[in-house]
This record gives sequence, structure tokens and C-alpha cells, in this order.
Amino acid sequence: MLAHRLIERKRDGGRIEPGEWRALALAYAKGHVPDYQMAALLMACFLRGLDRAETAALTEAMLDSGDRLDLAHLGRARIDKHSTGGVGDKVSLVLAPLVASVGVAVPMMSGRSLGHTGGTLDKLESIPGFRTDLTLAQAREQIDRLSCAMIGQTPEIAPADRRMYALRDATATVESIPLIAASIMSKKLAEDLSGLVLDMKRGSGSFLPELERVLELADLMIQLGADHGCACVALVTAMDRPLGRACGNALEVEEAIAALKGEGPADLMSVTYALAAEMVVLAGVAPNIDVARRELEKAVGTGRAAERFQQIIEAQGGNPGVVDDPAVLPQAAECELFPAARRGFVARVEPKPIGRAIVEMGGGRSHVDDVIDPSVGFVITARPGDWVEAGEPLATIFARDRAGIGAGRQALRSSIMIADEAEPPLPLISHRVTSSGADVYRGA
Amino acid sequence: MLAHRLIERKRDGGRIEPGEWRALALAYAKGHVPDYQMAALLMACFLRGLDRAETAALTEAMLDSGDRLDLAHLGRARIDKHSTGGVGDKVSLVLAPLVASVGVAVPMMSGRSLGHTGGTLDKLESIPGFRTDLTLAQAREQIDRLSCAMIGQTPEIAPADRRMYALRDATATVESIPLIAASIMSKKLAEDLSGLVLDMKRGSGSFLPELERVLELADLMIQLGADHGCACVALVTAMDRPLGRACGNALEVEEAIAALKGEGPADLMSVTYALAAEMVVLAGVAPNIDVARRELEKAVGTGRAAERFQQIIEAQGGNPGVVDDPAVLPQAAECELFPAARRGFVARVEPKPIGRAIVEMGGGRSHVDDVIDPSVGFVITARPGDWVEAGEPLATIFARDRAGIGAGRQALRSSIMIADEAEPPLPLISHRVTSSGADVYRGA
Repeated sequence: MLAHRLIERKRDGGRIEPGEWRALALAYAKGHVPDYQMAALLMACFLRGLDRAETAALTEAMLDSGDRLDLAHLGRARIDKHSTGGVGDKVSLVLAPLVASVGVAVPMMSGRSLGHTGGTLDKLESIPGFRTDLTLAQAREQIDRLSCAMIGQTPEIAPADRRMYALRDATATVESIPLIAASIMSKKLAEDLSGLVLDMKRGSGSFLPELERVLELADLMIQLGADHGCACVALVTAMDRPLGRACGNALEVEEAIAALKGEGPADLMSVTYALAAEMVVLAGVAPNIDVARRELEKAVGTGRAAERFQQIIEAQGGNPGVVDDPAVLPQAAECELFPAARRGFVARVEPKPIGRAIVEMGGGRSHVDDVIDPSVGFVITARPGDWVEAGEPLATIFARDRAGIGAGRQALRSSIMIADEAEPPLPLISHRVTSSGADVYRGA
Repeated sequence: MLAHRLIERKRDGGRIEPGEWRALALAYAKGHVPDYQMAALLMACFLRGLDRAETAALTEAMLDSGDRLDLAHLGRARIDKHSTGGVGDKVSLVLAPLVASVGVAVPMMSGRSLGHTGGTLDKLESIPGFRTDLTLAQAREQIDRLSCAMIGQTPEIAPADRRMYALRDATATVESIPLIAASIMSKKLAEDLSGLVLDMKRGSGSFLPELERVLELADLMIQLGADHGCACVALVTAMDRPLGRACGNALEVEEAIAALKGEGPADLMSVTYALAAEMVVLAGVAPNIDVARRELEKAVGTGRAAERFQQIIEAQGGNPGVVDDPAVLPQAAECELFPAARRGFVARVEPKPIGRAIVEMGGGRSHVDDVIDPSVGFVITARPGDWVEAGEPLATIFARDRAGIGAGRQALRSSIMIADEAEPPLPLISHRVTSSGADVYRGA
């Protein structure tokens, strides 16, 4: 009867109290509330909204539906990063070992690809042998030793969120700011974090394209973090084009390794350094962003960052040789250059057709249990604003067969627009948001 | 993928096309769309609404998800009545045999009690042996012979509605005018009707207390009927107090039998004659309401109406002796008078506490598969506006044990309000609605 009463109240625009959210999340995690009642409630929440206190209560209720990683014994700051997701976003792969290599504990819990965006777990698993299914105890031990573990949401973490997230995906109730915020924060807070850096994607390739909604979500997550003593900083970054050049699981791992050695594309390096520096400052390891950034550049320059990734790979069962020789990664059977159809400026490189094509080519998921081919994807060298000549290669397509190449070609045709003029793209990093509000980003 | 797309569109305030409703209803009836997706869609429909064309398409889609009763061979009009439900509403029990006894075919398909309102099927089944689970073929044969069958929604009739109604009950999506209209009309149109009379309850004891919403629902159902060549007339009747004196399954059968003999309470007789006369006119058996009413009064006066009920009971396996001797009905183990606590005017007799107490006392359902005790209930003699002295009996409580008597007493205390003054109750029949609009009711 509880669920029915809460659905009815939310349907009519009323509030659900903290104790009610708690009882509901527990009952749902235990299977005592059927999915159809939760689905009706989620749609009512989507359309009627949740206020700040309700969102906090839902976050806490989902958090308390499961276990937490207990890292207090470390005696130092634990900082993670979360990205709202995009195409070519391999920042986590670079940033986690990089930040760990300067002495910050990074208990990184990531997700899988679903829809047009990739997932860190799938990218990591393209490294032969790499396992992301550590137990909380194993993760804890590895964080003790290497300051970093890169794992998936275990069944013990926020089980109410786990069930609810799958249900939202099936019931068109994903794009709700309070539901997104509560889902992300319930998982992140279970990592026992002292700080969290948020990479808030904006633009056509992100889940929330409009800046206003992105800032609203950032503000809400920062507040939810503050409730639990977790200091949050958000950077708003561009997702009107893919980040870096590589899009696709193994291809992104290869680019991430290059970045750890200081050889990544400029945009990827900038975003990674900016987010990593915020993490280092939040951890109290550096007094300000400038010092943090110099520390991080040094870790890259000396090879310490790449070495840390190698250690993490080895600890999680992967082939550490990948750091020295990316040919260890799965290789696509077919590859083909994609030439410019005309001369002109690259006006747009739309992320969504790229992300969707990767799914179609076998490198992503339409269903939760689809098996991924890690080798497929794109390396897109054309950047918005570039001048190109007809026939000049804009990208390389990697596929498992000729049909995949065809799908890739079609995606690139609808993604890359060449015109006589090009509007400037979104600034790479446009805003910095803290608990005191949003500011235009001024860089390191 | 269909369901997800439709949920998303309705969520954002868009329209679902007729072909989409059809595909959805068929897939849902077959179990190919999970309840959680339908629950999310129903909540989106509840909050975003359905326009006239969508409601018509949904009605038709649910109707076409199953079989229909084919009565064309009768060569005469088939008329039914539907009530939006209330407490003490035993009109169907009186009206179906009455109207059949003057030569109108009445293929009556009714529901069970759920929530605070009773159900015709449960009332009929308090007659020992009475079966409401006839097949469509059996119902057809009985209508040929007796002009009437009183049955439940068979599994073949509108299976999409059947599943959806149960789901709406569990997901707080019942009180939506288009969903109510589509649900009722998909079942009624499956009876192959030429006409339908709607008893639209208003007031605190009805599902839609406000007159404006009642008229909106009536108008919508009349339009949906017209789409299928089914002429509809609606009367708006009072449900700010119970109808008649008896509330509870067997007690209502007893009162209905009295009414068929012309000895029912005045309000029950008035509402029954008014609705029945509309049916007789719709059937073309009488040229106007006055003539129809005289025909009906004659059927009651000559005993023909009661005799027809006896024939129907016998045909459906029940003990026909009940018409002559109501003691054949299940009798409550305990009964007790309920006296007035003070002198004054009866200001209110609230139906909802009465209906809820019947459920609590074992005479209704909290869950679809609860077994009903037909003997329990109330006979309430106090009417709004009556002057009563302290200690004067206002009602009799019928229960299976002392706990039931206690529950009944408490319900009557919160239902019956005695005061120094009494506002006049709602007019018994306030409006008559046809396809040309709503008029104030002027009586027969």
C-alpha cells in the first residue's frame, strides 16, 4: 500500500518524505515493490519533479539500500571524477592513474556503454585479461597499494539505484535532473569520497544539451555532495564534437595510453589536466590549480603516470604490455580511410551519429546483455574549424567486416559537415561550478 | 522499442496515433509489452491527457484486442446500463430484469467490487448457486430466451483493458477521464449494443465528485458510443449519500427484490425508473419517457418484472426461491441497531466510510482475489434532512462477529452527521446528457 500512496501523492504534485523514500528504496531493493509501481512513480517524478530535499532523501535512501566502500583507514583524501558522458570521452582512463600517481586515492567506480555513449568498463575490458568485477574488499586492498582501483558498480552498492536505473532506461524516465543527480550521487557517495570532480558535458552529443540544464544538474549534485561532506567541483566541457580523435573501445585505450605519455590530442590533454588538477587541489595535495597542474605534467613527463596505469592493469589481471605496445589490443579486421567529399571548412563533427554507428558496428550495446566487439570505431582527425581539401582523409573507420565499414562511412557522412564557413565550436571548457555558484572558466 | 517510443512521446505531451494504439494494445494483451512499460505510459497519459481522437483509438484498440458478443440475429435493439459506481447502488439488479420484462434485450456485463464501491457480480453471487461466468455462447442463448443475461467480463472481452485496468488500480492511474471512458466503452461496445444508458454518479461517494468532470466524462463516453453507432444517454445522479437503504451484497439483493415488487425505497425506485425508461425509449419500444415509465410500472405492478428476475436466477444456476423468500440469502451472525447520539437533523450520510467499512467487515475486496462474505453490511434508514431524536435507531449493522459490529459502529459514527441544521443534499437526478449536450433533468 505504501507504493500506491506515494505514487498517488507524487502524481498530484505532492512531496514524498525522507522516511518514505527510505522505506520505498529498501522495499524496492528487496523486490517487495513491483517494477510496474516503481515505473509509474518514476514517470510521476519525471513530470512533477522532486524538490531539493526530496532529491537528497532519495539519494540517501538509495545509498543506504546497500553497502559502502570504507576507506577511512587510508587517512587521506579520496577523490573521484564523474562524467555525464559523451563520445570519445576516455578521460577516466588517463586521469585515474595520473591522479593516483601524484598520491591521491582514486576509488573509481564506472559504468558500461548504453545508448550512444561509451562506458569506461567496456574500454578497460578491451585490454586482454582486464577484470573490472573486483569485490569491495579487493578494491580496497588495491587502493591501499596503488591509490587506485577501476571497478564497476558491485551488486552491494546502491542496489535500489541499480534496479531503478535499468527500469528508467526501459520507461523513458532517464532525462530527469533530480533522478539523474540522485542516481549518480548515490553511487559516488558509496565510494566514501572526500571530494568529487564533475565533468558536465554540454552540446548536441550530451544527454542534456542545454547549458542551463547542465548548470542546474551540476548545482544539484554539488549540493547533494555537500550534504555528505563530499566537496564537489564541476567543469562544463564541450560535447558538440567527440573528445580527442579515437572513438571506440580499444582505439580509445590506445589514445589514453598515448595521453598518459604526454602524446594525446590537445583537447583530451587540456580536459584531463583541468579535471585532474581540480582533484589534486580537492585532495589537498597541491595548494592551487597551477601547482597541481605542474605536478601532473611532471608525472606525465617522468613516465610515472603511464607506469601507474601499467601497475593497475597488472593488478586487475590485464596484460600490462599494452602500455608499451598497443598492438596487444584487439585489432579490427577491416579499416578504411574516409576522404573529404569537397573542400571547405569542417563546420561540424556531430558526436551522436558516431556513437550510434559504434553500437551498430558491434562496439556498443542496444541491450544490457549485448556482447561488445572492442576493436571497432573511428579515429577522426578532422576538427571543427579545420580547412580541408577534397579527397583529404578526415577519419579512419575500423570495422569487423565490410558491412561495418559501410555503416561507418554513412555515419561519418552524416556527422562531418564541410561548408564554406564554420561557426566556432563550443569552448572546450566553458564554466567552473562550485558550491558558491557558476563562473566562466578561466583556465589553469 | 515501440512502447519506449510511445512512452517518450506521451511524456513530452505528444500524440499517439490510432495504428500505434492498436499495435500497443495487441502486444500488451499478448504479454509482449511488460507491465512496467505500460505503467509508465499510463502515468504519462494520466498527467498529459489524451485528446478525443486518441481516446477513441485507445477504446477501439482495446475493443479489438478481443472478441465481441454478436447479437445482430436478435433483430431488435440491445440496450445496457453502466454506472460509474457508488455505495448502495443496486440499480442494475432491479433494472436489468425490469427492462427485459418489457421486451428490451439487455446483455448486461458487470464488474466486481473494488475499493469502496460494490460490484453487481458479487451481489448476484450472494444468491446461492448463482453463476456469472457464462461463456459468450451461453449468454447469447439466454438473451435469446429471456432478453437478459447478467455476466462478468469474460477473458475474451477486451483483454487489453482487463490487464490495463488491474494495472491502473495498482499504479494510481484510475481517475483519468479518458482512461475511464476508454475502459468502460471498450467493454460495453463489445456487447454489440444499439444503446447505452449511463448513470453518472456525482458527490463525495463517487469516483469523480465534481459535476464538471462528471459531465466531461459523460460527454466523452457519449461521443465514443456514437462512433460505433451506439446511442448513449446519461443521467447525473446523487452519490453524496448511499442509494436506497441497504449497503452490502446480500442486503442489497433483498432490497432489489423488494424494488422489483414495487416496495423499494423511493430514491431507488426513482433512479431505477428514470434509467430504465431511457433504455426503453432508446430501444424504440416506447415513443417517449412517459409511456416507457407507465410500461415499466405496469411490469412491476403485475409481478412480471420480479418473475423475469426469477427466470434469470434460475437460468444462471441460482436458487429462484430467493424472490419469494429472501431468507434464502446468507444471513449475518451478528446484528445491532445503531442509535442517534443526539437529537437534530441528519446533516450527512457519507457513503465512503460505509463502503470502506463493508470491505473491512469482509464484504468487499482490498485485493482482487479476496473472498467476500456476502452477509455483512448496513441498512441505513436515516436520510439527509430527517429529524431524529437521541437514541432513535438510524441504521442496523450486519456483521460476522463482534469485531465487525465494532467496525460498523465506527463507520456509522464517521458517516452520519447530526446537526442543528441540514443543508439540502444533491438533487437525486440533476442532469440529462445526450449527444446534443447537458440539460437540467426535468423528470419523467
